[in-house]
Parts: sequence; C-alpha cells; structure tokens
Amino acid sequence: MEASEKTFYDKLIENYHTELSHSGVSGERLASRLYKLSEIGYTESGGVNRPGYSFKEKQAKELVIGWMKNAGLTISIDGAGNVFGKLEGKGEKPSIVSGSHVDSVPNGGHFDGPLGVLAALEVVEAWREQGYTPEKPYEVVIFSDEEGSRFKAGLTGSRAYMGKIDIEELKGLRDENGKPFEQVITEYGSSVAHYLDARNNPREIDTFVEVHIEQGKVLEREDRPVGIVSGIAGPAWLEVTFVGEAGHAGNTPMKGRRDPLVASALFIKAVKEFPQQVSDTAVATVGKLNVYPNGVNVIAQEVQMIVDIRDIHQETRDRLVDLIFAEAEKIAAAADMEVKLVCNTKITPLPIQQNLQDKLAKALAKFEIEPTYIPSGAGHDAMILGGGGISAAMLFVRSKDGISHNPKEWTSLNDCVAVVHVLKAFIEDVMVD
Amino acid sequence: MEASEKTFYDKLIENYHTELSHSGVSGERLASRLYKLSEIGYTESGGVNRPGYSFKEKQAKELVIGWMKNAGLTISIDGAGNVFGKLEGKGEKPSIVSGSHVDSVPNGGHFDGPLGVLAALEVVEAWREQGYTPEKPYEVVIFSDEEGSRFKAGLTGSRAYMGKIDIEELKGLRDENGKPFEQVITEYGSSVAHYLDARNNPREIDTFVEVHIEQGKVLEREDRPVGIVSGIAGPAWLEVTFVGEAGHAGNTPMKGRRDPLVASALFIKAVKEFPQQVSDTAVATVGKLNVYPNGVNVIAQEVQMIVDIRDIHQETRDRLVDLIFAEAEKIAAAADMEVKLVCNTKITPLPIQQNLQDKLAKALAKFEIEPTYIPSGAGHDAMILGGGGISAAMLFVRSKDGISHNPKEWTSLNDCVAVVHVLKAFIEDVMVD
Repeated sequence: MEASEKTFYDKLIENYHTELSHSGVSGERLASRLYKLSEIGYTESGGVNRPGYSFKEKQAKELVIGWMKNAGLTISIDGAGNVFGKLEGKGEKPSIVSGSHVDSVPNGGHFDGPLGVLAALEVVEAWREQGYTPEKPYEVVIFSDEEGSRFKAGLTGSRAYMGKIDIEELKGLRDENGKPFEQVITEYGSSVAHYLDARNNPREIDTFVEVHIEQGKVLEREDRPVGIVSGIAGPAWLEVTFVGEAGHAGNTPMKGRRDPLVASALFIKAVKEFPQQVSDTAVATVGKLNVYPNGVNVIAQEVQMIVDIRDIHQETRDRLVDLIFAEAEKIAAAADMEVKLVCNTKITPLPIQQNLQDKLAKALAKFEIEPTYIPSGAGHDAMILGGGGISAAMLFVRSKDGISHNPKEWTSLNDCVAVVHVLKAFIEDVMVD
Repeated sequence: MEASEKTFYDKLIENYHTELSHSGVSGERLASRLYKLSEIGYTESGGVNRPGYSFKEKQAKELVIGWMKNAGLTISIDGAGNVFGKLEGKGEKPSIVSGSHVDSVPNGGHFDGPLGVLAALEVVEAWREQGYTPEKPYEVVIFSDEEGSRFKAGLTGSRAYMGKIDIEELKGLRDENGKPFEQVITEYGSSVAHYLDARNNPREIDTFVEVHIEQGKVLEREDRPVGIVSGIAGPAWLEVTFVGEAGHAGNTPMKGRRDPLVASALFIKAVKEFPQQVSDTAVATVGKLNVYPNGVNVIAQEVQMIVDIRDIHQETRDRLVDLIFAEAEKIAAAADMEVKLVCNTKITPLPIQQNLQDKLAKALAKFEIEPTYIPSGAGHDAMILGGGGISAAMLFVRSKDGISHNPKEWTSLNDCVAVVHVLKAFIEDVMVD
C-alpha cells in the first residue's frame, strides 16, 4: 500500500463526530474492529471474499470470539458453526439476542454482516463501561453462511439453528469446485451429524434483533441514519438449466441449431419484464450463469442459471415464481430443448410484529430520529428466526447510494454509531419488559 | 476393459465391407492404425487427450514415424515439430504433400486429424503393394498443435511452417497452467529459435491436399461418403465485455438497473439474427460467456463473451463482424453501459482453386461418387498453406451426426477407406500434371 493511500480505517474515522462516542459506546473501537475484520479476505479491488464455511469465515469468527471473551462473554458454538457469546443477566430468563453474520459474497463489502455482529458486541462493551448488568441474559450471535453464494443455498446457519434444514438438502449441496457440503463441513471441523444437531439445541429466546445496512436508498433519500424494517421479502431461488445440442461453431449452420445460450438470452430478457406485472416491490434477477463447455468455438451444450425472485408479499412473490417457471418451459418447448427447473430455496416473507416496530420507534425517538418504515428486499437471519416463531426485529442503517455486495458498499461511522445507540436503547427497553 | 466390451478397433471393423480393400489399400491396416493412435491419450469417456506439444502428441508422432520408416519414407522434423516423411519421385520436382495433425482438443475424437495423416500414409502403402513409383516426390506431413486448445492459438505448426508466426506471439503464449510456450517447446526438445527457423526452410510444394472429417451433417444428409471443400471460412473472434453496475438482487428496484447480463441477453439474441442478413453460409456463435462476480443474489458487474464469426467470403464475414460490433455499441449506449470490444483473431477465409475442385470431382467420379461442394466452417492447416500461396485442396469425409471434438465423433471405416481411394486417385492425377 502506498504511504499516501488511505486505509479503510482512515476513511471510517476521518469525518467521525467524536461527540457520538458517549454512554460507553466507542466509535473508535467500532471502526478499529470493522477495519480488522476487513483485512480477512481483503481483495485487490478493496472488497472482501469470505465464503460460508471457508477458512476466511472461520478466521473472522475467531477474531470476534477473542473480542467476545475479552468482554466477558461465555462462548458456545453449535454444529452449524453458529457462535454465541453469552452475558448472564440478573435472573434465569430467556435471552435477548442480537447479531448477524461475517461471511460475504465474492468481492463483497465490509458492512453487510460484520456491522450487525459488532454493533451487538458494542452494546456489551458500553454496558461494561457503564457498570450495567442486564435483567435478562444477552447473547451476541454470529450465524454461519448467511449469503449462501458458495452452495447456492443461503441462511444455512440460522436455518440449521431453527431446524429448517434437513439431511436431504445438505446432501445435495456442492460448491463451485464440486466439493460436497459434507466434505466442506468436515474440513471446517464439524460434521453433517453435528450440523443437524444444531436444531436439537432449542434455546429460549425472548427477542432477536438484527442490525444491518439498508442495501437500498430509502434512508439516504429521507436523510435519516437509522430506520425500522417493516417486513422482509423472502427470496425464492429458481435453478434453470437449458440443455441443448453442442456442435462446432463453424460447421453447424444457424438453421436447426439448438443453442441453450440463445434460449437463456430469451429467458433473461423475459425475466426482466415480469416483476412489474405482479407488484411495485417485486424483483427478479439472474446474477449467476454458467455455460458448459464454455469454449470459444463450441455451441453450448448446457446453460445453468439461478433466478433470484423476491417480494415482501408471499402471494405476489409466488405468482412471480410461477410466471418465470412457465416462461422457461415455454422457451424450451419453442426451442425443442430440455429444461430442468428446481426451486432450491423458497423462504416465506416475514412481516415484523407491530409491538416490536413501536419499541424501535421509541428507541429512535430517544435520539430524535423520525421513524422510517422500510420493507427489506434482502433475506436476513432475522427472517429465519422470525419465521420460526421467535419475536424478531430489525434496524436498517443508511447505506451510501444503496450499494452492497460490492467493494463500494459504505456506511459512515457516524451512522454505525447511531445505530449502536438505538440498538442499546431498544435492548435496555426490552430487558425490563 | 470388460471382456464383453467392444474396443474401438472392433467397432471400426464390424461393419466393414472387405471388398473396399483393393488397389493396395487396406481397410484392416487403416483400422489397426487408427486404433493404435486412439490408445495414446485415451480418456475414460472413450475420447482422447493429446494437447499440442504434449508428451502424448509426441508419442503419437513417434508411432506414425515408425510406420513411415517401414513404408520407406525419409523423415525430417522442423523446429516446430512438424514431421515430414518423404518418398522420392522419378524426378527432382516440387512435392505433392498430404497430411493433417495428431493433436486433439480436450476429450476429443479419434478421427479429427489422425484420419488425414493415416489416409496420406495409406496411399504410400498402396503404391508399395502396387509397385508404383510417383513422378514427383510425395510427402506425408504431421503438423503440430492444430487445435490450439492448449495455448488458445491454433494452427501454430502450419503457421510456423509458412512463416506466419513471430517471436512476439510466441512470447505471449501460456498454457492453462500458466506455463510459457518457451518452456513447453524446450521440454518438447526444440527451442523458440528453432521454432522460428521452420519458416527458413521453404519447401517447394506442388500441391497440398488434406483429408478431414466434415464435422457437419451435409454429407450425411446427401448420403455420400466423401465431398469436396469449396472454401474454408476464416474465423474472427470478437471479445465483447459489457460493464454495468453491481447491486443487491433483493434491494435494487428493477427500474434504473444497469445489468450487463440483461444487455448480454439482448446482444446474444441479436447475434443470432445477423448471419442470415449477410449470406447463407455465415455463422455467428457465443459459446463462451463469463459473468462477474457470478453470485446468486448479486446483479452482475461485468459480462465477458467471445463471438465466433465465420464465413467463406471475406467481404461478408467482415460485414458480419461490423454489424455485430455496431449492435454491441448500440445496446451499451441504450443501457447506459460501457462496452469493450476487441477482435483478437481474424483469419482470412480461403476459397479453394476451381481447377483443384475439378480434379477432386474427377477422382470422385472414378468411384461413382457425385460431387458435393461444402464450405468448411472450421479452420484447417490447408487454410494456412493455401493462404500462403500454395495450391491447397481438401476432401471431407462423412461424419456421424456432424459431431466432432467429442468422444462420440465417428466415421465408418467404409467411408475412411473410400476417401483413401479418392485421395490416391487425385494424387496420381496431379503427379502427371
């Protein structure tokens, strides 16, 4: 790195309003920890690579575990690699839990996940400085493999924790190099059996609250640092494989070709048009596409894609899935081609309970922040816990230009610290419920 | 191999019409030699792996050199590893040359290349049995590294021979493992200096004729064993990269997205429609496409494709390149996106001289085969020699289902022997010109 080049830490701290560090919350500590996490899997373009169940994800967890221990938390790790750092409360009651994840998409950003974990931990640090002992136990959690970009099956850590993943699904998972999940999880230091055990460890949770960057532009537009999530759009992931007929690119006349990449092109074009037919909030994206054999002078034999389909209302989301499913079959039939359609992931959208949204608004009011209610387009671990019947809430933090899953992902340290204060006030409120 | 399983040899010989073995030509010998070559680099799925300048390609050449020597040919090998087996003629005249290559694509077939070499050698064997001495010298050639799949630069052996390759290009070549060409060619037993020397050895060639499988379905449809190549389509390889804006697939509204995979879909759809606008023989194919970062829930940042564009007429091929180039720019402009366009490879198409096509038709007539004139979509060593001013002709042999570059590649032994007879008649005709 050139002497003149600013580090991620320098950029975080340079416009920080130091008066925001109060009530035991330290913006400087939070910046330093965000920076230290960013170094694990740091990419040339300034982003981060920490796939689920990779060595880098494990390293990141171990770094946070060290901080948790220093803060006096008792560590437990389940078979899915989910990490819990527990602070005992005054009584034997269900825990308040907060946290997020530390894995990333390929070349992702430094806030998506880490901020939720470090904000939850900063609350403990603040309490230590203030000499505060909570009424109920409090736990900081790191869920494994939230992004799911490695195995094309997201939220596996929180799903394992809620018993929403079974051995059949695990058996089917392979990473991009064809390595089976079983081998990956064994090399990670667990096993499929231990993995499934995570669900046999039902903890009593009073309330779960997750802090996350917005990954959209609503708060930026409203000029507010923190907002309240009103509902979470559950994603459906549809794997679409067109199987055509390979051939020599030079010797196969255009007429009569059964080229699956041409079929895929028609499909991608159609997918873009469907969301507006079902709702204003629906989205559908092909972000992952692989061609086989992928040779310059070979007409493709097979093209595999995954369509990411979302809406915050289950009815419209499912209608969109059906439309896209039917379109793939229509294109395949017209092109005299086989199409394989598999829906790997289909997560129920989650509305957030009104009483939790009200309590979040009360915490915001303490810092004179007007409440903004935002539907989340992205799935989050909070959605899995909420879908399993746990009281789950979410806070969004302003995200520059709405960019995420990208090295350019950015949230100012001022906003990061603002959300820690709001989170702390919310938890202290729920503690005395 | 299971006792019950048929070998490649068994499959070749089982439906052979033995009466085709006449005039010194032996189908049994040809089958045995195709079989022995198939064993060098034989793959699990029944194909073959003999990359250019690999140990396997060298082994294959050495096997053929042994047969050449037994047939009384004098061997010379140039710095590019091209093998020449020379039979002296009655006088000191330029040679008639025939042959092809013995390298293969990964998991390729057993006819693409080897049949051209062994057919040329079978002509010598037939002459020996008949006690025929040619008027002019005759040479059987094995060109190195025709397929080019190892260094992504095909026809390097014949290009070196014609002085169409320079030190700059050789310096830039690396195989898939990053090994520089210089190291590969040194390990092969030559050197870059010797390689470039191949061009300092200009042989006088009267006529070059290459036998090759069709790699298309024209002869199969016409029910003819052998056909005449009317011209060879030179490929242009256009690298197209759309650069858009990455984002979270869930939190980025459909409106305002700059998704390079959607742009690529429009482009691929358009590419398919252009060839018919320029000629009946033009083709354009996107067979290689890579998405970055290729994550399930990430709108792509960048999509890179290569378009393979061919026609046998340079004017229409270049017009097609221009049309596709312009379309890429148009799509990028409409989508507010950057597009990078690079034309890496642009090889001049080769029309085959009319007098050579007429002589091939005369040779076919001797065996009562109606002439079929076929444009070759694939590049061949004959194209390089012809492009350098040598009289070059090509015979195509019927290829089952038009499949090549694949373990399923198949030409019946009857058709292999038919083409040897035609080749022999053509060469004997050219000998007395």
